[in-house]
Amino acid sequence: MKLQVLQVPGFVAGAVAAGLRKDGKRDLGMIFSQVPACVAGVFTTNQVQAAPVLLDKRRIKSGRCQAIVANSGNANACNGKQGIQDAEAVTRAAATALGIPEDLVLVASTGVIGQRLNVSAIEAAMPSLATRLSPTGLGDLAHAIMTTDTFPKSVSKQDRVDHKTFTLAGVAKGAGMIMPDMATMLCFICTDMGAKPHLLRQALKDAVATSFNAITVDGETSTNDTVLLLANGLSGLNLEEAACAAAFQKVLSEVLFTLALQIVRDGEGATKLVGILVKGASSKADATTVAYTVANSLLVKTALFGEDANWGRIMVAIGRAGVPINPEAIDISFNDVYMVKHGQGCGRQAEAAATRVLKDDRFTITIDLRLGSESATVHTCDLSSDYVRINADYRS
Amino acid sequence: MKLQVLQVPGFVAGAVAAGLRKDGKRDLGMIFSQVPACVAGVFTTNQVQAAPVLLDKRRIKSGRCQAIVANSGNANACNGKQGIQDAEAVTRAAATALGIPEDLVLVASTGVIGQRLNVSAIEAAMPSLATRLSPTGLGDLAHAIMTTDTFPKSVSKQDRVDHKTFTLAGVAKGAGMIMPDMATMLCFICTDMGAKPHLLRQALKDAVATSFNAITVDGETSTNDTVLLLANGLSGLNLEEAACAAAFQKVLSEVLFTLALQIVRDGEGATKLVGILVKGASSKADATTVAYTVANSLLVKTALFGEDANWGRIMVAIGRAGVPINPEAIDISFNDVYMVKHGQGCGRQAEAAATRVLKDDRFTITIDLRLGSESATVHTCDLSSDYVRINADYRS
Repeated sequence: MKLQVLQVPGFVAGAVAAGLRKDGKRDLGMIFSQVPACVAGVFTTNQVQAAPVLLDKRRIKSGRCQAIVANSGNANACNGKQGIQDAEAVTRAAATALGIPEDLVLVASTGVIGQRLNVSAIEAAMPSLATRLSPTGLGDLAHAIMTTDTFPKSVSKQDRVDHKTFTLAGVAKGAGMIMPDMATMLCFICTDMGAKPHLLRQALKDAVATSFNAITVDGETSTNDTVLLLANGLSGLNLEEAACAAAFQKVLSEVLFTLALQIVRDGEGATKLVGILVKGASSKADATTVAYTVANSLLVKTALFGEDANWGRIMVAIGRAGVPINPEAIDISFNDVYMVKHGQGCGRQAEAAATRVLKDDRFTITIDLRLGSESATVHTCDLSSDYVRINADYRS
Repeated sequence: MKLQVLQVPGFVAGAVAAGLRKDGKRDLGMIFSQVPACVAGVFTTNQVQAAPVLLDKRRIKSGRCQAIVANSGNANACNGKQGIQDAEAVTRAAATALGIPEDLVLVASTGVIGQRLNVSAIEAAMPSLATRLSPTGLGDLAHAIMTTDTFPKSVSKQDRVDHKTFTLAGVAKGAGMIMPDMATMLCFICTDMGAKPHLLRQALKDAVATSFNAITVDGETSTNDTVLLLANGLSGLNLEEAACAAAFQKVLSEVLFTLALQIVRDGEGATKLVGILVKGASSKADATTVAYTVANSLLVKTALFGEDANWGRIMVAIGRAGVPINPEAIDISFNDVYMVKHGQGCGRQAEAAATRVLKDDRFTITIDLRLGSESATVHTCDLSSDYVRINADYRS
């Protein structure tokens, strides 16, 4: 299957099977910018950080990057100094194959923790990977970074400013260990917008806040979370112009939000994509806390899987969120069907209507705390027996 | 099946099927002290509190109680003022049947949230319940409060002070929605120890801290959590004597710890009882936070179910616990098998040995943060596909 992703001027990408995965699928991919690009990144907040994250955080300070190399099959985490040396060796192999300085190469890994990366397999595959890079290759990269993902994730968008077009194209992987800050996943975005590093960083930070930092699959945060945004300037547009900044922020936010929803929709074992909107909160922080407590509740998530309009479990989760509430003020609706008014159920007819909503594979649960005017939305998925099967069997 | 529970002088108990449960099983039970007893209670910290909890918290201030009535099949939660009136009606029916003042009756409910309690069924069953009370009836009560529990939970112990014997007997129910503070469950304990309310409260609080407040099944905290301890003084011993206080605290702590472990062992779908011991922490609070983060991690719990010695998931949970750590200092062992030393895996041989430990149905995971000298233990269970099945189908 060839993914349809818009080409971004000046970027090529591709993937090969280097033999890191037992199943022989593609497991090593690359993005290359024909000119050095401006770069911004967001990384896991987990205190246990994989070697590629530690290496990237050091290199990204320069604000410049020309290539990203990524592998699945091994996370290169919890490998101590050896892990760092192995990550460096991967970037050295990429730099040699591409004929660019090593410090312009960033790296990302995903897979099993605590096993040494097979560097020689990567080194052996690198020349072949470098020759396969193509303007249409981003979709191949999306395939190569999949782990328990059931479909590759990509999106691309264009907009125009002053009759000039700019393009954004992104790929991501997710599936399990998904929760901010920031959502556990890999995501790489290319654009031909021009940028200085500090503006690119701010744009990325703002877009992540409403996308990858507003989703959850299982409340976990991995050692390897990485979002990298490369901007090579070939469009002739630049973020320093206000019109460009506004247009770019809008498209970037759309791209990241789309990828974030793809990650939740493809949550391990997920059958439903559910928005949890908390409104009427005293503060944005309270709204977010309540939304995440509901979104991560095992009892809520299993009820969603069972298509059971069990609003009592939502009330329970709200009540243990650690945020001041008035139970007798709370309203809860499933799409436009009110299930709870003033903290009490709306009866069997409402339940029957809500059960019909629950049969959809995408809907919104709205919780009105009726205390203030702040709100927050988190997207989650249901918890199915397949999640357990996938994660009980992952390594076997 | 008749549970073997020691008789406690002056206490009788029993249970009947009042028709609250669809399956026709016993669903209404009672404990009665032939003399008014001293009482202490601990209740849910969830801000959404069921009517029985709200009523009991008001009545227990007197420090006196003579009867507890408990039902399964309906939680009487989220029913507003009607719920309170219904809970009061239940205690009134019990008081009438027993010939005691209504304010000496406490009440507890467990089951579905947000449906009105069938008070007339309870009123109709109460006279029959009152005539069935017997000194050997605690086991019947343990059966009547079961919901998704697969076995009734009870324990009893005796000790002697100055040639006088005192007895404690307790029953509990748990299964799902289990996490402090305090562990989500119902628990009733009878003793013939004598006590003043403030001493009984402190003894209960201390015993709960190391039992029900040190377990988790699914990180949930229900609206109905209740622990009630009745002390009728018929042993002739009294907590005001130091020797009695020490002996009583020891036995009470053992009784609650045993019931707490029974609850985890019978966690919904659980196949394993796992102690998470965090040591070498800078503070007790840090140790507890790390232990609970690991104990509630879906990825850790599914790996336990899969008998997969996937220590990387434990490292990930430690790293996101929000407590300062040094990843490269951490040791992790499964019973006496070291899996991680200084933040790195101990290799395939260790993994094979750890996998053998994982095949047991009870073991301990020890995490040494190597930062200080504080420690904490939390008991958890694995997350199986049966947990999902049970909770996706609960109401259907």
